[in-house]
Amino acid sequence: MGEQLMENFLIKRAFLTPDRTAIEFEGMQFSFKEVYDRAVDFAGRMAGQGLQKNDFAAVLLKNSADSAIILYALQLLGVKAVILNSRLTASELSWQVQDSESAYLITEDSFISAAEEVKESCPAVIVLQKEKLHTLPYSEAPIVREIDLNDVCTVMYTSGTTGNPKGVLQTYGNHWWSAAGSALNLGLAENDSWLCTVPLFHISGYSILMRSIIYGINIHILERFQAREVIEVIEKRNITVMSVVSTMLTQILEELGQERLPQHFRCMLLGGGPASLSLLESCKEKSIPVYQTYGMTETSSQVATLSPEYSLTKLGSAGKPLFPAQLKIMNNAGEEVSPGEPGEIIVKGFNVTIGYLNREKDTKEKIKNGWLATGDLGYMDDDGFLFVLDRRSDLIISGGENVYPAEIEGVLTAHPDIADAGVIAMEDKRWGQVPIAFIQASSNTLTEEDIKTYCLERLAKYKIPKNMYFIEEIPRNAAKKILRRELRKLLDA
Amino acid sequence: MGEQLMENFLIKRAFLTPDRTAIEFEGMQFSFKEVYDRAVDFAGRMAGQGLQKNDFAAVLLKNSADSAIILYALQLLGVKAVILNSRLTASELSWQVQDSESAYLITEDSFISAAEEVKESCPAVIVLQKEKLHTLPYSEAPIVREIDLNDVCTVMYTSGTTGNPKGVLQTYGNHWWSAAGSALNLGLAENDSWLCTVPLFHISGYSILMRSIIYGINIHILERFQAREVIEVIEKRNITVMSVVSTMLTQILEELGQERLPQHFRCMLLGGGPASLSLLESCKEKSIPVYQTYGMTETSSQVATLSPEYSLTKLGSAGKPLFPAQLKIMNNAGEEVSPGEPGEIIVKGFNVTIGYLNREKDTKEKIKNGWLATGDLGYMDDDGFLFVLDRRSDLIISGGENVYPAEIEGVLTAHPDIADAGVIAMEDKRWGQVPIAFIQASSNTLTEEDIKTYCLERLAKYKIPKNMYFIEEIPRNAAKKILRRELRKLLDA
Repeated sequence: MGEQLMENFLIKRAFLTPDRTAIEFEGMQFSFKEVYDRAVDFAGRMAGQGLQKNDFAAVLLKNSADSAIILYALQLLGVKAVILNSRLTASELSWQVQDSESAYLITEDSFISAAEEVKESCPAVIVLQKEKLHTLPYSEAPIVREIDLNDVCTVMYTSGTTGNPKGVLQTYGNHWWSAAGSALNLGLAENDSWLCTVPLFHISGYSILMRSIIYGINIHILERFQAREVIEVIEKRNITVMSVVSTMLTQILEELGQERLPQHFRCMLLGGGPASLSLLESCKEKSIPVYQTYGMTETSSQVATLSPEYSLTKLGSAGKPLFPAQLKIMNNAGEEVSPGEPGEIIVKGFNVTIGYLNREKDTKEKIKNGWLATGDLGYMDDDGFLFVLDRRSDLIISGGENVYPAEIEGVLTAHPDIADAGVIAMEDKRWGQVPIAFIQASSNTLTEEDIKTYCLERLAKYKIPKNMYFIEEIPRNAAKKILRRELRKLLDA
Repeated sequence: MGEQLMENFLIKRAFLTPDRTAIEFEGMQFSFKEVYDRAVDFAGRMAGQGLQKNDFAAVLLKNSADSAIILYALQLLGVKAVILNSRLTASELSWQVQDSESAYLITEDSFISAAEEVKESCPAVIVLQKEKLHTLPYSEAPIVREIDLNDVCTVMYTSGTTGNPKGVLQTYGNHWWSAAGSALNLGLAENDSWLCTVPLFHISGYSILMRSIIYGINIHILERFQAREVIEVIEKRNITVMSVVSTMLTQILEELGQERLPQHFRCMLLGGGPASLSLLESCKEKSIPVYQTYGMTETSSQVATLSPEYSLTKLGSAGKPLFPAQLKIMNNAGEEVSPGEPGEIIVKGFNVTIGYLNREKDTKEKIKNGWLATGDLGYMDDDGFLFVLDRRSDLIISGGENVYPAEIEGVLTAHPDIADAGVIAMEDKRWGQVPIAFIQASSNTLTEEDIKTYCLERLAKYKIPKNMYFIEEIPRNAAKKILRRELRKLLDA
């Protein structure tokens, strides 16, 4: 594809509506002009350390105004941000820093020990600390005034069903089209204000940053989700839209009790798997407009969304693909199936990733003629509404985080006293799902406690199996694939 | 640029929101599903006459629901619509049909004699008549399900100020980005309803058709503008947005008298030149939110827009370029000028035409590195707001001073007894050129002396028209632009 040049989004936005509020965080407010000025300053400090256009820079930050502004500053420099999940262990982080060949790691106080561990395994990496950026010498930042929509803006890692996590490439165009498609679906008002309690390191959070500068709307950032605080912020700060996963929504409803959200609140954008009937009915009772979505890192946020008018009649559906996106259901023979028939969900559109970083083979396997094979199962009903049956057969979604059994199994089987291991999901009231593990030990003395301690160093907390079951042998088929159905039977028995 | 495939807009829209109202016209309502079905039928009838993908088809139609649906049907077939201005003479029409090598002319009863004259000079042209389409044999229409954003969708002729009219190529991408940019600026609500009384053969009208299917909103079409009818439709049909030129707005205000437009009306999109202070003040008094715009056929509608909050403080400004567009002011040496300095307005963006049909030389002259030289003069103030001074060719140079007719006309039309005014140059022995004015008075007692006295207070001496001619009506084209050629004829007569 040829060049597709457009003014740098933040520069354009600061020019168009300099005085509108861009970010609210912990009682502070920043206008777009202020965000721009601060981003230019950060960019200059980082440029002074040698960071430059087309570099990959890993980013390990909490939700905050300055984290958002640093992410914008990287766009100003034309740096590709490798956005790290702060729940990962140092060894997981190191792996992603190495895989992306990131020359820089931008982090903050809270993560400095993890950053130091990363630096031990990647000694060449230059660590920049958010709190100290302003003390670095300022160098005139070489601002990229025009971006190419085909250029990579961000990289976010996701694990597949096998092997190591892969870096999903998200271009400026991916983010633009995602934002445009979402606006056409949800509508847009100048006084919109989007509450961001989901992590900026996930596409659910980062896409809110992009919408802010593309739409010219305010985002209210919270470091973390707390139901009472959320309700107060929605009321007092005139929040109109919020992104949630179903556990958050459940907690908001519980906290609300007899209260209601204010009239000005117009959209609860629900990702990370379908909501239960009882949850949706409670929302309806309280006149909370829920938009159920289907999306993934590879589609730069939502690719399909269900409007509230259908939330009960099309219960469990993720709606229809956004205007700029296309969606089909395919059988194993690669043919499109009829309505009602299940198959793999494949998607196409300018919001779909151009591929995986340095993984041409994976890219070619997953993306054919512009169609991305999501690995998810689903069907379309007669009216064209998408029903997602299962995320990639074995994907576990725990509190909105994707958990990949293969990754946990890889860690488990690397333990000297574990011969084999299998991981599946267990229902959980709070998190929706949690991972549990079946262990085939090669030593009699191995305990559950030993394994948990071992995992704590290697896996983010949400990935650590909640329960462990010692069994004689992990059931595998002739091709040595784990028979998760058999494990499920053991669990249910 | 490589392929940029997207689902055909109408097909996608009919799938997403089949039951929403798409078009209202003369008491009839069509949902998107109905519009789609009817468009497929029209497409099949036209395909039966041999019309096929990539053909050029001239279209000569009045504003109506079926005219809109025929224009959509041509998109379904992948036919490039050469949209003719119905106010042209038969010889002007023939010229455009020949220049575009249109093999078809799609027209209706009212224009059948003009169509016959066209056929005399272009005997190969196949004339299809709107009222008879349904009697033609239906052939399974080969629907283009995916369009390429780089493909030409429409051709509209603009008469530059010199030479023959040129066919402006507008791609699907041009229309898409224009619609997206406008939504980001004006906001978007599901219950928006756009009143279209401007001609569908102009980009001001055609762009409303595109917004309807891209946004999923209703458009209410009127065959022609009538102030009383407009006010009633806005009230009774819940119109929220309307496209106007300033003469329409003046008439609406007069007709309103002590009335007001209803609360739900949120945007008066004003094109075709700047409005006078008195007009804007009257709008403010009546709480009519006016968005002043700058745009042209080559930019597929607005390229810059001024929000109502600035309509008085930035009087006469056309605002800032839309999010996806860029705008600069250049001097004759091709350098960007400083704020406040006038120069030629040049624009860039995905809404800008790829060029002129079969006129590579003109295209290369006007578009360089993606920047279109508009030929219009203007300046940007310190805050980046655009002020359009005049069309370059209309520039009057008097004793070395630049004189911009639009500026003088703005002053004249602000006079309480002047309904309209047009200014052109007259040769002058001493000064080279001097401005002279044609006045359409709204009072019998107004004298040339009155006007000169009035101007003396408001204009530098060299800008004051040397002669004034009272005429019945200032000649304007369908887009309400002053026909200075006609004024010139009056002067020379």
